[in-house]
Amino acid sequence: MSSDLIGVFGGSGFIGQHLVRALLNDGQRVRCTARAVSSSLENDFPADIWSVCNIKSPLDCNMALNGVNTVVQLISTSSPGMGNQHLEADITDNVLPHVSFIKNAIANGVKRYIFLSSGGTVYGQNHSTPSRETDLTCPISSHGLTKLMIEKYLEMHGVLDDLDFVILRISNPYGPGQKFNKGQGLIPALLQRHKQGLPIQIIGDGNAMRDYLYIDDTIDAIVRATKSVDAAKQIINIGAGQGRTILSVIDTIERQMDVSFRKEYVPSRPTDVAYNVLNIEKAEKILGWKPTTSFEVGLDLLLRTQKTI
Amino acid sequence: MSSDLIGVFGGSGFIGQHLVRALLNDGQRVRCTARAVSSSLENDFPADIWSVCNIKSPLDCNMALNGVNTVVQLISTSSPGMGNQHLEADITDNVLPHVSFIKNAIANGVKRYIFLSSGGTVYGQNHSTPSRETDLTCPISSHGLTKLMIEKYLEMHGVLDDLDFVILRISNPYGPGQKFNKGQGLIPALLQRHKQGLPIQIIGDGNAMRDYLYIDDTIDAIVRATKSVDAAKQIINIGAGQGRTILSVIDTIERQMDVSFRKEYVPSRPTDVAYNVLNIEKAEKILGWKPTTSFEVGLDLLLRTQKTI
Repeated sequence: MSSDLIGVFGGSGFIGQHLVRALLNDGQRVRCTARAVSSSLENDFPADIWSVCNIKSPLDCNMALNGVNTVVQLISTSSPGMGNQHLEADITDNVLPHVSFIKNAIANGVKRYIFLSSGGTVYGQNHSTPSRETDLTCPISSHGLTKLMIEKYLEMHGVLDDLDFVILRISNPYGPGQKFNKGQGLIPALLQRHKQGLPIQIIGDGNAMRDYLYIDDTIDAIVRATKSVDAAKQIINIGAGQGRTILSVIDTIERQMDVSFRKEYVPSRPTDVAYNVLNIEKAEKILGWKPTTSFEVGLDLLLRTQKTI
Repeated sequence: MSSDLIGVFGGSGFIGQHLVRALLNDGQRVRCTARAVSSSLENDFPADIWSVCNIKSPLDCNMALNGVNTVVQLISTSSPGMGNQHLEADITDNVLPHVSFIKNAIANGVKRYIFLSSGGTVYGQNHSTPSRETDLTCPISSHGLTKLMIEKYLEMHGVLDDLDFVILRISNPYGPGQKFNKGQGLIPALLQRHKQGLPIQIIGDGNAMRDYLYIDDTIDAIVRATKSVDAAKQIINIGAGQGRTILSVIDTIERQMDVSFRKEYVPSRPTDVAYNVLNIEKAEKILGWKPTTSFEVGLDLLLRTQKTI
């Protein structure tokens, strides 16, 4: 229907694959870029949508941006689980390429630029109620800091170049296809340990509160952000809007799988906050979006795919 | 009196020279670092306080930090006047060395870390009343962005490493010894053009509102920040708390010098905001500080030194 071209950058990851599938099902024209495209991905998707792009290469980016109207930027080289071991590398490998990429996108005439930020890490600590988009942002992890910096560059270009950005601060997405990667993803981490016959690891006392969002709801929000006029130049939280402790997640998995995990407690990371839940009123107001999949239903959908693997 | 050693980093600049003089007069032990030390500086100050340090060299920084209890970090390689021509270089030359330097300071046991941020650029646009420390920070210049990032790293280390930082968001300091440098410093820019027989340049329509703070008041705030217990982990605006247009500054100079400048209007820079004035209630509360030099008196003191040069 639309002749707009949507460029999904970082399309081979967990969110990327779900998003590309959803956009194709929606009849959109998509170019999906990744550092490398595996044969399984090529089998899953039409071959002609793929473009190999290393975000550190301006030439790659230029080619991948050619003709693109809407960018969805999913690339991140850091993750919350990596802690603060590489403060400088997180800047050179993450912030710098994004700063160049944004300029490149503007020069290429990109109309809308959707950036997936981290609702889980940009706000920092000292919250005890769901964070609003207007709350102070004081990250205590390198991952959160780099996401926040990229947000600030987008906001600047929004003013100076009238760049039509949308910053989506995503909470903790989960669902089929998520792999335990770079210390990220509680549920796949638990399931992987269990499958390997190892005790599952509970970080800290297990009472850390997080906001788990099913992948289909996450994707629905991103797709809406590609279309919504009202979303222009907005920062929008995308989460379940409800908190859940690690212990409660484990308990629910145990019940649904009808198993009892062996457990071991491991120290929490200093870069982890005790409480992170997002207030999602703005998403409902701007995008007409709210999550529709309960944690129990989402988990059930995830566990079914696990069984078939 | 005190055996604490204060390390002033970037001590050869406008603020640095005034600060070192004030600290020495106050009986403090000072190590003053700069990339290079000119012979005139060596004549002005005791030779043994100087240490040559390039902030990009971890070895230099380690040596300069050895035994230092309090850091006053004045180094900046960018300025508001440089605009956004070097977004990436401002990150690699400014943010990255500061991030390494902060880690280095923590490892060296630095107790207090005072960072001079930019009250003039971190808040961004859309203000029409004096900015408070809790206002949203949305810089529209590379200079403001890099200052804000460094603030965020300090705040993170305040949480994770209990670093006792003080962030001073300084407005527009002026006074004797200020040179027109990297596009910064309205008053020396005007005086330099006049001295060269050139028309003075009025940026935009001349109605941009800024907060001009006399250097002695600026220094008083920094010296208080080296001592104040209550200032720990605080962000504090340091300004006159009152706005003044460029045209009003020019008018006051003309009256006090009894001249009439030739004037030319030049386009404003997109990275300039229309209004920037700081609310300074927090500085009074935390540091017991407020400015005591009116603009007229401060300007008179500045113009007297100009005549003797």
